[in-house]
Amino acid sequence: MADFEKLKKLCKLIRYDILTSTTEAKSGHPTTSLSAVELMTTLFFAESNSAGGGFFKADLAHPKGVQSLNNDRVVFSKGHASPLIYSLYHAAGVISYPELMQLRKINSDLEGHPTFRFKYADVATGSLGQGLSAGVGMALGIKLLHPKPYSLTPNVYVLLGDSEMAEGQVWEAVQIASHYKLNNLIAIADINRLGQSTETMLGWDLETYKKRFEAFGWNVITVDDGHDLAKVYEAFSQSQLNQSSRSSRSESVKSVTDSTGSTDLTDLTDKPTIILARTIKGKGVSFLENKEGWHGKPLPKEMLESALKELGKVDLKARGKIELPKIQITKSKIQTNYKIQNPKYEMGASIATRLAYGDALLALGDVNDKIVALDAEMSNSTYSEKFAKKFPERYFEMFIAEQNMMTTALGISKLGFIPFASTFAAFLTRGFDQLRMAQYSAPNLKIVGSHCGVSIGPDGPSQMGLEDISMFRSILNSIILYPADATSAFKLTQVMAEKDGLFYLRTNRKETPVIYGEKEEFKIGGSKIHYSKIRNPKSVIKKSNNFNALIIAAGVTLHESLKAQKELAKQGVETVVLDCYSVKPLDVQSINRLTKEIKNVIVVEDHYPAGGIGDTVADLIVNCKLKIKNYTHLCVRKLPRSGSPEELLAYEEINAEAIIKAVKNVKS
Amino acid sequence: MADFEKLKKLCKLIRYDILTSTTEAKSGHPTTSLSAVELMTTLFFAESNSAGGGFFKADLAHPKGVQSLNNDRVVFSKGHASPLIYSLYHAAGVISYPELMQLRKINSDLEGHPTFRFKYADVATGSLGQGLSAGVGMALGIKLLHPKPYSLTPNVYVLLGDSEMAEGQVWEAVQIASHYKLNNLIAIADINRLGQSTETMLGWDLETYKKRFEAFGWNVITVDDGHDLAKVYEAFSQSQLNQSSRSSRSESVKSVTDSTGSTDLTDLTDKPTIILARTIKGKGVSFLENKEGWHGKPLPKEMLESALKELGKVDLKARGKIELPKIQITKSKIQTNYKIQNPKYEMGASIATRLAYGDALLALGDVNDKIVALDAEMSNSTYSEKFAKKFPERYFEMFIAEQNMMTTALGISKLGFIPFASTFAAFLTRGFDQLRMAQYSAPNLKIVGSHCGVSIGPDGPSQMGLEDISMFRSILNSIILYPADATSAFKLTQVMAEKDGLFYLRTNRKETPVIYGEKEEFKIGGSKIHYSKIRNPKSVIKKSNNFNALIIAAGVTLHESLKAQKELAKQGVETVVLDCYSVKPLDVQSINRLTKEIKNVIVVEDHYPAGGIGDTVADLIVNCKLKIKNYTHLCVRKLPRSGSPEELLAYEEINAEAIIKAVKNVKS
Repeated sequence: MADFEKLKKLCKLIRYDILTSTTEAKSGHPTTSLSAVELMTTLFFAESNSAGGGFFKADLAHPKGVQSLNNDRVVFSKGHASPLIYSLYHAAGVISYPELMQLRKINSDLEGHPTFRFKYADVATGSLGQGLSAGVGMALGIKLLHPKPYSLTPNVYVLLGDSEMAEGQVWEAVQIASHYKLNNLIAIADINRLGQSTETMLGWDLETYKKRFEAFGWNVITVDDGHDLAKVYEAFSQSQLNQSSRSSRSESVKSVTDSTGSTDLTDLTDKPTIILARTIKGKGVSFLENKEGWHGKPLPKEMLESALKELGKVDLKARGKIELPKIQITKSKIQTNYKIQNPKYEMGASIATRLAYGDALLALGDVNDKIVALDAEMSNSTYSEKFAKKFPERYFEMFIAEQNMMTTALGISKLGFIPFASTFAAFLTRGFDQLRMAQYSAPNLKIVGSHCGVSIGPDGPSQMGLEDISMFRSILNSIILYPADATSAFKLTQVMAEKDGLFYLRTNRKETPVIYGEKEEFKIGGSKIHYSKIRNPKSVIKKSNNFNALIIAAGVTLHESLKAQKELAKQGVETVVLDCYSVKPLDVQSINRLTKEIKNVIVVEDHYPAGGIGDTVADLIVNCKLKIKNYTHLCVRKLPRSGSPEELLAYEEINAEAIIKAVKNVKS
Repeated sequence: MADFEKLKKLCKLIRYDILTSTTEAKSGHPTTSLSAVELMTTLFFAESNSAGGGFFKADLAHPKGVQSLNNDRVVFSKGHASPLIYSLYHAAGVISYPELMQLRKINSDLEGHPTFRFKYADVATGSLGQGLSAGVGMALGIKLLHPKPYSLTPNVYVLLGDSEMAEGQVWEAVQIASHYKLNNLIAIADINRLGQSTETMLGWDLETYKKRFEAFGWNVITVDDGHDLAKVYEAFSQSQLNQSSRSSRSESVKSVTDSTGSTDLTDLTDKPTIILARTIKGKGVSFLENKEGWHGKPLPKEMLESALKELGKVDLKARGKIELPKIQITKSKIQTNYKIQNPKYEMGASIATRLAYGDALLALGDVNDKIVALDAEMSNSTYSEKFAKKFPERYFEMFIAEQNMMTTALGISKLGFIPFASTFAAFLTRGFDQLRMAQYSAPNLKIVGSHCGVSIGPDGPSQMGLEDISMFRSILNSIILYPADATSAFKLTQVMAEKDGLFYLRTNRKETPVIYGEKEEFKIGGSKIHYSKIRNPKSVIKKSNNFNALIIAAGVTLHESLKAQKELAKQGVETVVLDCYSVKPLDVQSINRLTKEIKNVIVVEDHYPAGGIGDTVADLIVNCKLKIKNYTHLCVRKLPRSGSPEELLAYEEINAEAIIKAVKNVKS
């Protein structure tokens, strides 16, 4: 058995830390933290013993990311319990008390909700309901690093709040965890009954929670008193059966199981586990316990004193020990090979950029086994199916659940994998909060949205990505690539793989002609410039006023622009078309240079007016004080409808004809 | 019993219509439509009889919205089954065959997925997993119109696909429907096993679906063959027990119930119902039935011929009858009174705009009983709690499930209510896809996001709305209001209530001084102009170059701008500060006029660089060719962290000091 006296001492210390740090910070969530003290203290610090104690195992010298693939992972999905998180690491001896007292201060990495800045957090949390998805991603990644079935692998622990279980994303993660038989995933639900403003829908109804999780294919362990260390310890011991039964120790574990009399090992071994614990919000301080009106409120100084009096004598020097991993994983080599053969698309051939994306992903999969793909049940439209067919073990069908897909992709990246997640551009909006949160997790995410714009045609507006550029632009450090032909789509996919960060690749449903040869190069912040064919660009560009307009476009509208350019040239109107395949960052230098000579700028894009390429260019013009004469922004200004791609491009006035008209307008 | 021969005839016609219309359109989803033919034909056209047949009741002359509150509602959540939808209305005699053959054509309102343009659809569908939430909203609205318990009320029917049940939003709707005891909500799940690219997670495992829905508190009826009209009819008859048991007919129904031997009326009466039907994708055409690879594909002409041969003789003149509602609801008067007393905030008092929003909502609730409020368990932070406390029956706690909140709000608006839905601005991103879709439903939605920007302080970046303006701007016909003080927040809330549309109100956590008197007026597209105090604005504005800079700001940064203005004035630097409380549409006229005189423009906002007020102003400058000299955009350019509001405004360089520096920079 565990040393419960020691655990009790640690719990006291952690309560002391929670209360004093939040009062010092004058903000924070002590009551939310207090309810999970016994749960997390037991997970972290229960000592090793034959029954499988010493649950959470990690090398705190290499706490996260790919530094230590042997570690168990822990995700604090209820990120507002950050005082608990930091106090646990204080009790583990890796955060000093003075550091802890810097909670929420401007220079401290102990933020109100944990972000990538916290040394021991893989992912930021604080937008509720996302942590389990991150755990799913990590559990999948661990499985992928240990393909041998029933081998002993690290576990992933996720602390859930009960309020956040109202988030649909939690159920997306729940269903996918059982679908993928993630028996290395152990969730801990801190069921303290009280949300921020009211009681949760289920209160302390553990039985209903149990039914729900069981119906979704989980192994459920209930704890009727989440503050009873012996009961909590027993629950964690049971949760390890999953893990142990897969190990060489299965025999000894089996006897433990038999003694409980209720565990069917064969059934247990392929299920994720949840510990449902009835707890009390504010536990340990009589005037906070189970009280409404105390969410997110620290104790004023005078109340803190009474609270500490209740706590009694605290051993401020008590320290717990987090065990080192016993598992020695085959060291996973980080692969850095992204070199793939040039694509062999015939110039002029009609190929959709989404197809070329599929080709490139497949080629990348061949040279780098860290590339993985996820899709929200659209793989035959996004063409991630090419990869899925060749590398089924590295393809994760996420079904129609985009929120979970986003955070799962983030989670798997924390094991060193490079995830490409795709669906229709329109449906990526389903994962905006998840993308927003990912930016606080130092992400390496490659998101691919197909079927952008009205050019998808007859499926109608619900299927058209018309806000997607805006969405990705608004994320601070994102990169947006939008290829117009198969060659650039292929090569930009490779560019995405090579560099860490949050990337978005926008692809088309519609086929477009190949316009770039296999040796063309594409880079972040680059562009391609197309001059009217009848002139010699080298000589002309130096003279002013030779060109009537600079047309900036990408994707489908680039081809419309090239059509317009050809037609205009016949009429003696010369234009330059800039393919801004790198929407963010934009090729500032080229546009700067070109607008020195060309005073009429036309942006044409298959996107709603706000937040897209137009805004990007307008920003550039005003911020860099480009001296232009006329600016025209052609984009989707009417609510679209069903129709053929050509009809819709015409209806929205973003086709060649509209461009010609716009050029003639500014020229005159 | 129903006339099954007639229903069979109608099913045949509808199959014929589905196949011919999609082949004619050369795109669309026939197989998805075919699986639900018996289900929906029975719902629509089974004839009245003593056992409760004639299920779906509606007056097709007044098909949607508030025109007919007596109608049952139907939501086709699987919107890609639109050929089925349109064929049903063809069979009902309100769409002609030539009209049907216009499916997906540019001038037809029969779009690829239904939008507001379709006369018989309350809400657009096509982004999967949203329809049940819309149904929840409608069912809540109906309940609100009929507060008397157990009165006979219209039902809401929602056709769900099985693939879409992977969407977390579905489970958000499922849990809230049972929480609110929506026994007037009847879902029909078309479990055809096949998604777009692969089998669903549960395939035909009806038993597991049943367990899940039961665990979530639903009444479940299973149909092992969704193409057996007698079985489908029996299922719908059972689903009416809920409804009937609440009616005066309860006695007669009770006997029916007793004869089935398994129905507990007391239990049934407060639960929503789902009919889980095992169906076959592509049913009726041997070479399509249960086949992968046929999702979203119409039959080529030659295959259509074989398919029609299989169908056999079709009675093209067969028509079904949708029964008129038997229920006569107390006519709900549409209230148009929005006139509330002026707010009595003392000038200079420190009041958060979120609080003033709460005051205004409360006041509106008093004068107009069509005002309802929803919140994602943040009501004590957003201050919707003021309304909730006074009007508990018109307040809907949506718990932490933002996606469902958005679509539920849309749904309830279709019963004539004016929903205000609030949570933290940051978490509104959770509902982007739902907002995006709402724009195709002719929405009347008032969304309120509190806790915007870094000025929230120590909670950290996960809680900061920094992409919210961008998100709402990207929606085509949205209106964005962003008040800086309590008076304007109060008055703009009233403005939102008065006009239909998709509105966003951005409120602050932080208290700000009241700067506007109770008689000031605020309007969509308006602004307030603050001149340096030491001059007489009327005389000065006509002379050029008297002002060194125009500072455009809103919310917290408006106050920073006013502080800067005061400080600068002391140093002899004159500025004009424009409070652009109407971010979209912007007060183009005032900015136009002011920039005729003032050549340095500074925008300062508590938002990330892209998509916010800066982009809006930059757009205006380039599009209207405003001739300015310098443009400076102060905004959140670094990933924020925890800290005090003041520290963070300084860290991001959007405080008074930074503004002063920026003005001095451009001035020199």
